[in-house]
Amino acid sequence: MRYLKSSWLVLCDKNFTIIKDGFVVFDDKIIDFGDQNRLQKLYKSKKFVHLGANSVLMPGLVNPHIHLEFAANISTLQYGSFTLWLKTVLKYRDELIDKIDTSGIDKQLDDILKSGTTSIGAISSYGLDMNSCIKSKLKVTYFIEAIGQDISKIDELFENFQKKLKKALSFKSKNFTPAVAIHSPYSTGLSLIEKCLKIAKEKNLPVTAHFLESYDEKQWLEHNSGVMAEFFLEFFNKNRSSITADKFLELFKDIKILSFVHCCYASKSQLDYIIKQKAMIVHCPKSNMLLGGKLLDIKDMNNISLGTDGLSSNDSLNMFDELKMALFMHQNIELETKARVLLYMATNMASKTLGQNTGQIKVGHKADLISFDIENKHIQNLATNIILQEKEIKDIYIDGKKII
Amino acid sequence: MRYLKSSWLVLCDKNFTIIKDGFVVFDDKIIDFGDQNRLQKLYKSKKFVHLGANSVLMPGLVNPHIHLEFAANISTLQYGSFTLWLKTVLKYRDELIDKIDTSGIDKQLDDILKSGTTSIGAISSYGLDMNSCIKSKLKVTYFIEAIGQDISKIDELFENFQKKLKKALSFKSKNFTPAVAIHSPYSTGLSLIEKCLKIAKEKNLPVTAHFLESYDEKQWLEHNSGVMAEFFLEFFNKNRSSITADKFLELFKDIKILSFVHCCYASKSQLDYIIKQKAMIVHCPKSNMLLGGKLLDIKDMNNISLGTDGLSSNDSLNMFDELKMALFMHQNIELETKARVLLYMATNMASKTLGQNTGQIKVGHKADLISFDIENKHIQNLATNIILQEKEIKDIYIDGKKII
Repeated sequence: MRYLKSSWLVLCDKNFTIIKDGFVVFDDKIIDFGDQNRLQKLYKSKKFVHLGANSVLMPGLVNPHIHLEFAANISTLQYGSFTLWLKTVLKYRDELIDKIDTSGIDKQLDDILKSGTTSIGAISSYGLDMNSCIKSKLKVTYFIEAIGQDISKIDELFENFQKKLKKALSFKSKNFTPAVAIHSPYSTGLSLIEKCLKIAKEKNLPVTAHFLESYDEKQWLEHNSGVMAEFFLEFFNKNRSSITADKFLELFKDIKILSFVHCCYASKSQLDYIIKQKAMIVHCPKSNMLLGGKLLDIKDMNNISLGTDGLSSNDSLNMFDELKMALFMHQNIELETKARVLLYMATNMASKTLGQNTGQIKVGHKADLISFDIENKHIQNLATNIILQEKEIKDIYIDGKKII
Repeated sequence: MRYLKSSWLVLCDKNFTIIKDGFVVFDDKIIDFGDQNRLQKLYKSKKFVHLGANSVLMPGLVNPHIHLEFAANISTLQYGSFTLWLKTVLKYRDELIDKIDTSGIDKQLDDILKSGTTSIGAISSYGLDMNSCIKSKLKVTYFIEAIGQDISKIDELFENFQKKLKKALSFKSKNFTPAVAIHSPYSTGLSLIEKCLKIAKEKNLPVTAHFLESYDEKQWLEHNSGVMAEFFLEFFNKNRSSITADKFLELFKDIKILSFVHCCYASKSQLDYIIKQKAMIVHCPKSNMLLGGKLLDIKDMNNISLGTDGLSSNDSLNMFDELKMALFMHQNIELETKARVLLYMATNMASKTLGQNTGQIKVGHKADLISFDIENKHIQNLATNIILQEKEIKDIYIDGKKII
């Protein structure tokens, strides 16, 4: 059992409760927490370790959407337009994949952990990252990706998917959760989607999919037009999308742990449908901006989490970098309110996206916690300062075990 | 005379010309520049030093608006609302000023230089930064600030202003340019403004002023209402602004080197008037966002430069940090176009703001240059990659002299 006190205990609950000089008791789960008055009386024989005069203790960050296998990209993939980017992905993906090895994957996982993230959702296109994810100290939801729509190859693609899933399932543990990713409505054939989702339902696996990331995708899915239509004609000799955006969403009925990534161009009715499905949205603002997308409206939404996406469309997998950029990118929301919403999205909502009971300091939740020091004079600026200031993560606990 | 070649020569002219494998010849000024074909023939007896396979050579960045004296702020001043922030400035400014000494000012200047900035505009409220600015290797336009509107103290304030200006003028050199700052329409008395501007005109000094930084300021100046009206009643027993925003702008007639800082809430007609005055606008997006302001529209404007403001309302004086944040903050402009506009604002336009002939690689311009390495595969992403990638500034030249 551990007994900690910190200057600022940040629960990351819906109301963004902050306890000045807060106390926490935990083993692998949170046993109790609160202010000095109650906790010191209740545990008067125990010695609480003080994390320091400017310390913050809060839930570890959760990054629900990363592609670890594309980390060799720095300037290889062209930014600015989604379809141009996609063309460079097709052209250079083999070259990029050749450049990444186990040590490159391990380094990313290590950097992610040290930057204060305790759980990730890793989308795996090739399975090259599986062993690293299995042995990482991070909690990994490992999404095996189904992609491809050539009818003649569907059986082969599905077989490959099943093979990787079988291997992943054989390593399932409390820190490694196999899951299913459907790449997107424009890139994954209908029968492949149906086969993979059938398995996901049978085995109750988390599922994720990219959805309406770009204007080009929307034009293609809904009007069979635009630059993505030209792309499909040129590269795949295809002049109609196999599926509409609405029809795609309907395929995910009855999936319990479900997320749609990006949704920048989803309509009000599509966003409402996603809410009705009890599905989460993963918002990756830096990636969206680099690929010519627009900023998702995060106001008044209660099912949005924050993620970085991969180095294929970002320059950092550090969630505090993403939080800081998002704090400046989103406008027309009062600063501290915005900072609190973003931290909630990066912890509580992101954990919910992966179906975990972490991301909030709450009795019974897993004790995935981080601590660091910041300078803070005004409590009305605490979340802003947590995001704004450079900080070194001093302590990391996963399931109550001290990792760093 | 120096002869350099770099992989990417970035001129920072209006068309954002990029010369692949570009050559430059300079002493204190740029003598010649161009591509391999012409330059190698013309200077065939000379040996051009290659800066490296991934090198960029471009004009040094210019940061036209900094307050060096408030650098002790980390979380002391409250962010989120301009008027709340202003109240904390009044409450804590003595405490903050007490914490800053010459070594604190020197360190900022050194960090600014090392981050690739070769010229700054420093707004001095107290004169504590004068000696550091005089001996810095940076080019400094040193703005002595006039602030205060208590009629009974105007003579004293003006005397103090004159004393500091006299000292600054006695140190005037090619790297240290004394100048005049009028704090703002809401904080500087009309007669003080007039006296100071008279001197500025006589001595042909650059002039700058904060203008319509916040909605609160606009409401106060134009309607004598809003939270700034409450502030003036409480702190200064004043219920009417002494001047309107339009009247304030008119006072600066015939100032040759003139800039207005922020202008977030300036109307179309006010922005047009500023253009008619041939005045520049300094855009400090991070500062604006932290103080609850809105983002200035930078599209279609040809008189906007980029600046950081001071650590009183920013966490960094590094212009590359400001550029990166601005790249993600501004929306609805194509990514690379935006990156080029921002780099142009941070060099060419910022230099123009301070009345210097730097900020562009152009024959006859001063050779203030920086070089660094980046990875770049697509020329259509060069400006984006210059802003996006972490980089160490390898070489810095000011007036052709190698500083680093």
